[in-house]
Amino acid sequence: MATADSDKRFALIKENLAEVLNEEIIKKILDEGKHPKIYWGTATTGRPHCGYFVPAIKIAQFLAAGCDVTILLADIHGFLDNLKAPLELVAQRAEFYRHIITTMLQAVGVSTEKLRVVLGSSYQKSPEYVMDVYKMASIISEHDAKKAGAEVVKQTDNAPLSGLLYPILQVLDEQYLDCDAQFGGMDQRKLFTAAKEWLPKLGYRERAHLLNPMVPGLHGGKMSSSDPDSKIDLLDPPETVAKKIKKAHAAPQVVEENGLLAFIEFVLLPAARLRGSAEFRVDRERDGLEPLVYTDIEKIREDYKTDVLTPQLIKPAVTRELNALLAPIQQAFQASKEWREIADKAYPPPPKKEKKVKNKGTRYPGGVREQPDTKETELPVQLNGEALN
Amino acid sequence: MATADSDKRFALIKENLAEVLNEEIIKKILDEGKHPKIYWGTATTGRPHCGYFVPAIKIAQFLAAGCDVTILLADIHGFLDNLKAPLELVAQRAEFYRHIITTMLQAVGVSTEKLRVVLGSSYQKSPEYVMDVYKMASIISEHDAKKAGAEVVKQTDNAPLSGLLYPILQVLDEQYLDCDAQFGGMDQRKLFTAAKEWLPKLGYRERAHLLNPMVPGLHGGKMSSSDPDSKIDLLDPPETVAKKIKKAHAAPQVVEENGLLAFIEFVLLPAARLRGSAEFRVDRERDGLEPLVYTDIEKIREDYKTDVLTPQLIKPAVTRELNALLAPIQQAFQASKEWREIADKAYPPPPKKEKKVKNKGTRYPGGVREQPDTKETELPVQLNGEALN
Repeated sequence: MATADSDKRFALIKENLAEVLNEEIIKKILDEGKHPKIYWGTATTGRPHCGYFVPAIKIAQFLAAGCDVTILLADIHGFLDNLKAPLELVAQRAEFYRHIITTMLQAVGVSTEKLRVVLGSSYQKSPEYVMDVYKMASIISEHDAKKAGAEVVKQTDNAPLSGLLYPILQVLDEQYLDCDAQFGGMDQRKLFTAAKEWLPKLGYRERAHLLNPMVPGLHGGKMSSSDPDSKIDLLDPPETVAKKIKKAHAAPQVVEENGLLAFIEFVLLPAARLRGSAEFRVDRERDGLEPLVYTDIEKIREDYKTDVLTPQLIKPAVTRELNALLAPIQQAFQASKEWREIADKAYPPPPKKEKKVKNKGTRYPGGVREQPDTKETELPVQLNGEALN
Repeated sequence: MATADSDKRFALIKENLAEVLNEEIIKKILDEGKHPKIYWGTATTGRPHCGYFVPAIKIAQFLAAGCDVTILLADIHGFLDNLKAPLELVAQRAEFYRHIITTMLQAVGVSTEKLRVVLGSSYQKSPEYVMDVYKMASIISEHDAKKAGAEVVKQTDNAPLSGLLYPILQVLDEQYLDCDAQFGGMDQRKLFTAAKEWLPKLGYRERAHLLNPMVPGLHGGKMSSSDPDSKIDLLDPPETVAKKIKKAHAAPQVVEENGLLAFIEFVLLPAARLRGSAEFRVDRERDGLEPLVYTDIEKIREDYKTDVLTPQLIKPAVTRELNALLAPIQQAFQASKEWREIADKAYPPPPKKEKKVKNKGTRYPGGVREQPDTKETELPVQLNGEALN
């Protein structure tokens, strides 16, 4: 039976999502006063940047709503996406991801007691899993596998076969991570509807799916990872963050595809609410005016449209709030010798004067899609979690 | 250095083959006086019939030439090809295959001491193998996988994804079975050339490939497994064998696509040579004439063309020789309680009045391609080992 409590929990789970498939699965669990199990996956190829706050905030909300959350660190996928990166490096990166994602969630004040972080390699090589991969491959057509991965896997004539395996693995992960729902970006929609259809074919239950909208990047869609200023690293010092945000493209009065407003809507406001405050404050001291204080995105959009809220005003406010989010992460990093050592191993300085290794880019679809580190991106403009490139 | 002995061994290895790829690999091993390791795979979906003598004779020749031979019983493939056949049934069938293939080799008088029979499931679910499947899938394109399997995997729009995985598995099997050469039918050629190209990409050595020609079936290409008379089972009693061969299509004077002549060439003559005799005798008592005695296929063809050797004369001779090959197999079967019990479990009587389960047919390419048991075959006319359907 639905209760005020279960309704409130469900509202928090759904907040800011673009769509929920089979929400009855989650509602039933909430109505029983239990804990829905939600899984989110990310390939550990690159390095998490501030765009990861978009899914991280949703995960924080799931935890705050009393869900059990599993984060899959897809190290096998990470390795396979770029065979030139040795397995040991990917393993170190997975450890780096584990530290930083956990700390991101703690930074917004949620308990990570009910958070489980699982390495893909811990079960994706098991005999049971492998037999299910073989089985699924024998009942799913090439055509359906291609369709399921259409928006998350590069589709070219000489695309590797692994692109057709990925949807099968991701669908099986729902079963093997024992989740009630999978969370991801809207680019995962075809894969999620495939999961609904495919799992019952192996006798497994259908899961719910939580879909985040595609959030524009800070640069308003212009994403170039070859520009070092386009990505804000989670360990970037405050002045670097300020510099990068200052450079961010934001047309006055245009709210569509506005990366700054999107970051406020999908990260800063929900983070504030999770911490118990619900404010986004914009100082106007320089103009001798009182600060603007917002509690919802609608009013912010409205003021932006009328140029009451200008890019010049909003950028320092976003910088201040982002730096506030980053501070505890960076403190934790500085405090942990283990983590710092992992960082050194996971991201060794590039060898000098050698030609950069071409990174094929991560195609593992986990709500955040990473960009290749060393070449112009070929990814579409709107990517969930790519907000801050 | 080549010696008379190594030349002789190589001649026996090559006998009747259509083609050998990278024969230098095998020659080198022979010249060192060592034992080339050869692998042949078959999926354990159906039931071995007399067509299996075609690859079995080659395997017997490999053993006689001092090779180490591994037979892969591809039970996982067998299972995957027909998910409706439970895994236990496929496991029982694998045991049946193990017994009957071993006995077939013993029937032609070769020692099976250097024969190893391996179940696919014993290593195809191991973490190392699986990682290699993932790796290979990430460097081989869909296009190349499809091309490699073009003649051994059904190619339709809604073909299952497993069809693209099969070539990868079969290529990796060369490494994991630790062979120097893979043996198969000419329908495997594209897959074998892919293996030459793909294995080195994972740092594994290139193997030689031994290709059997495509041998026409006893029915001269007309193969229908829905006709119970079209297949001669290895356990068929002599009178059933006689009846089935009597019905076999064989146009007088036509040597092309002649299944009877093919069976003499690829099974009976080599079997006779392995047993130390080298004769194929055709009785003509009925006509009050002396028997015709052959030691090579050319003379047989010649006499057949001129109708000296008629279908009516040749059929009883083939029947006699085939029954002689079958006799020790059937004796061994009768003598083994264990094997008889396995046969009962592996091939239980079909449930009465129920509609027959549609068998999708085995696509695992191992030199013998099996036919679906219960429907008209969709396979091309010339199949290696399908000789006696």
